[in-house]
Amino acid sequence: MSKHKVLLLGATGETGGDVLTGLLEDNTFAVSLLVQPSSADKSANQAFKERGLPIIIGDLNGSVDELSKVISGFQTVISTIGAADQKTQLTLVEACALAKTPRFIPCGFTTVCPPGGVMSLRDDKEVVYQRILREKVPYTIIDVGYWHQISFPKLASGKIDYATLVPRNDVFHDGEAKTLLTDKRDMGRFVARIIKDSRTLNQKVFTYSDSLSQNEIIALLEEKSGEKVETTRVSASELLARRDQARKDYEAVNEDPTFWMKRMMRSQTEYQVSKYLRKDNTVDNAKYLGYLNARELYPDFQPIKFEQLLDEVLAGKGQRPYVGRF
Amino acid sequence: MSKHKVLLLGATGETGGDVLTGLLEDNTFAVSLLVQPSSADKSANQAFKERGLPIIIGDLNGSVDELSKVISGFQTVISTIGAADQKTQLTLVEACALAKTPRFIPCGFTTVCPPGGVMSLRDDKEVVYQRILREKVPYTIIDVGYWHQISFPKLASGKIDYATLVPRNDVFHDGEAKTLLTDKRDMGRFVARIIKDSRTLNQKVFTYSDSLSQNEIIALLEEKSGEKVETTRVSASELLARRDQARKDYEAVNEDPTFWMKRMMRSQTEYQVSKYLRKDNTVDNAKYLGYLNARELYPDFQPIKFEQLLDEVLAGKGQRPYVGRF
Repeated sequence: MSKHKVLLLGATGETGGDVLTGLLEDNTFAVSLLVQPSSADKSANQAFKERGLPIIIGDLNGSVDELSKVISGFQTVISTIGAADQKTQLTLVEACALAKTPRFIPCGFTTVCPPGGVMSLRDDKEVVYQRILREKVPYTIIDVGYWHQISFPKLASGKIDYATLVPRNDVFHDGEAKTLLTDKRDMGRFVARIIKDSRTLNQKVFTYSDSLSQNEIIALLEEKSGEKVETTRVSASELLARRDQARKDYEAVNEDPTFWMKRMMRSQTEYQVSKYLRKDNTVDNAKYLGYLNARELYPDFQPIKFEQLLDEVLAGKGQRPYVGRF
Repeated sequence: MSKHKVLLLGATGETGGDVLTGLLEDNTFAVSLLVQPSSADKSANQAFKERGLPIIIGDLNGSVDELSKVISGFQTVISTIGAADQKTQLTLVEACALAKTPRFIPCGFTTVCPPGGVMSLRDDKEVVYQRILREKVPYTIIDVGYWHQISFPKLASGKIDYATLVPRNDVFHDGEAKTLLTDKRDMGRFVARIIKDSRTLNQKVFTYSDSLSQNEIIALLEEKSGEKVETTRVSASELLARRDQARKDYEAVNEDPTFWMKRMMRSQTEYQVSKYLRKDNTVDNAKYLGYLNARELYPDFQPIKFEQLLDEVLAGKGQRPYVGRF
């Protein structure tokens, strides 16, 4: 049987890298990588080439016609574009329409959250989703909750600092809001199942291994490490004030050197409001929003539990995400 | 058993009037009418009062707190607000959230069409739908396609002019695009079934009796009337040019005396592009967009066929919509 032909955009990024690994592990896909002309010479892409992965050059800022020729013939096109570049997918959507791509996976891969002013990132994605619907492109939106790898606090001993991207010792409101978590290494495994499944066509799907509150995560880490976790309580009103300030700061900048930091602050505080105050990133809310539950679709699949990730991190086997990417 | 308590906004309008009739016919609902303070003295509302329908005064331009008290205790709140006033529903959505209304029916009641720049009316509704999702209000969106009553051309003899709202003798592109049609008198009958049905909670539902092209409608009318229908062919490019011009004209006006006419021209041409060129208003597209099919949900219900409406109109028993409303 010939392999399912997948074209993946963004393989040099965190999400794309994990999606690629999961697809190759599955062994039923022939994966090619869609690379923008400006990135063709990146060492990471050269390394993919040396591993025998076909590189397809396509310009998201070029013409729809050209891009549609480049992506033609692939059964599934997957986009894992950077957070700041969501809208560059619009050309890709139109190219998929023209090429009659049987399934497009836009860059979801975020928490469960409605559009309409909660998270700027989500609203950027909504523009892309609406274009998909306008162009009648067959699609699946896949959201994964938050990663295990960026969901634990630091220990006072500094023992797990090596695996920590951003300190997570602020506890918001009462610390009781449950949020959906997926180990980043499982994203590609879920994707491999979802894109072979006709039940997920023209649907939204969410993945998770655990639904845990901040208090539960802290208790688990204290139990496993034998250390007390030092936290700072942040009230709901303080978090909202931080979010509003971060939005103002972001609006005030142009492309100056602080742009990325301010964008990240806005993104972080919006995530926190959505997860911890609004409780958007939950099973119930996903069902309300019309998502299919990947755990119900694939009951045989055992995702990596959050507890296992903590064990690995405490054993010195963790890995800080985004190493070398900034 | 106590009756299902429904609060209906917009009963003096075309859609609201038909919804009211359908709900009362069903005989399982206790219907109250939500009326804005500025409309309390309208003769139509006085007439409802005399028929024994409770009138509830609520201000969509007032505070959410006040409005939530007014709508509290109703099991279903239905909005059939005018096309130009869609966004005034935002307060009502927030009031439903506060009052924990078990089901809100926003003002859908249009053709099947995606958001994102196809129809301004649809995009106004999308703002309301996103607010519903943000506030986690239980909802059902009900779309009905286009009404039988405004979907037939005039006859040269003038015989059916009395029942004609807008002349429909332009045939767009090849005249072959199928569109979903519902008799306006069936809207309320569908609504009565949908709001008692737990399967439709937090879903979109579409209704129809027929899926007919312009060519099929003309052939049917010619056969039944014995007259030749005189049509004007409008090419796809000509329709797109009309739509673009109507959008420009609308953008250029403020609230001058031509405002309503220009709004209607924009609306009409956007509907035409969506129905006849994009083929949005179809069973297949509704399924793609995630709608449930009311005909599959209620296979026992026999909606009024388009052919029956034509027979009535030809027998002099038709009724022009919006009589006395402009």
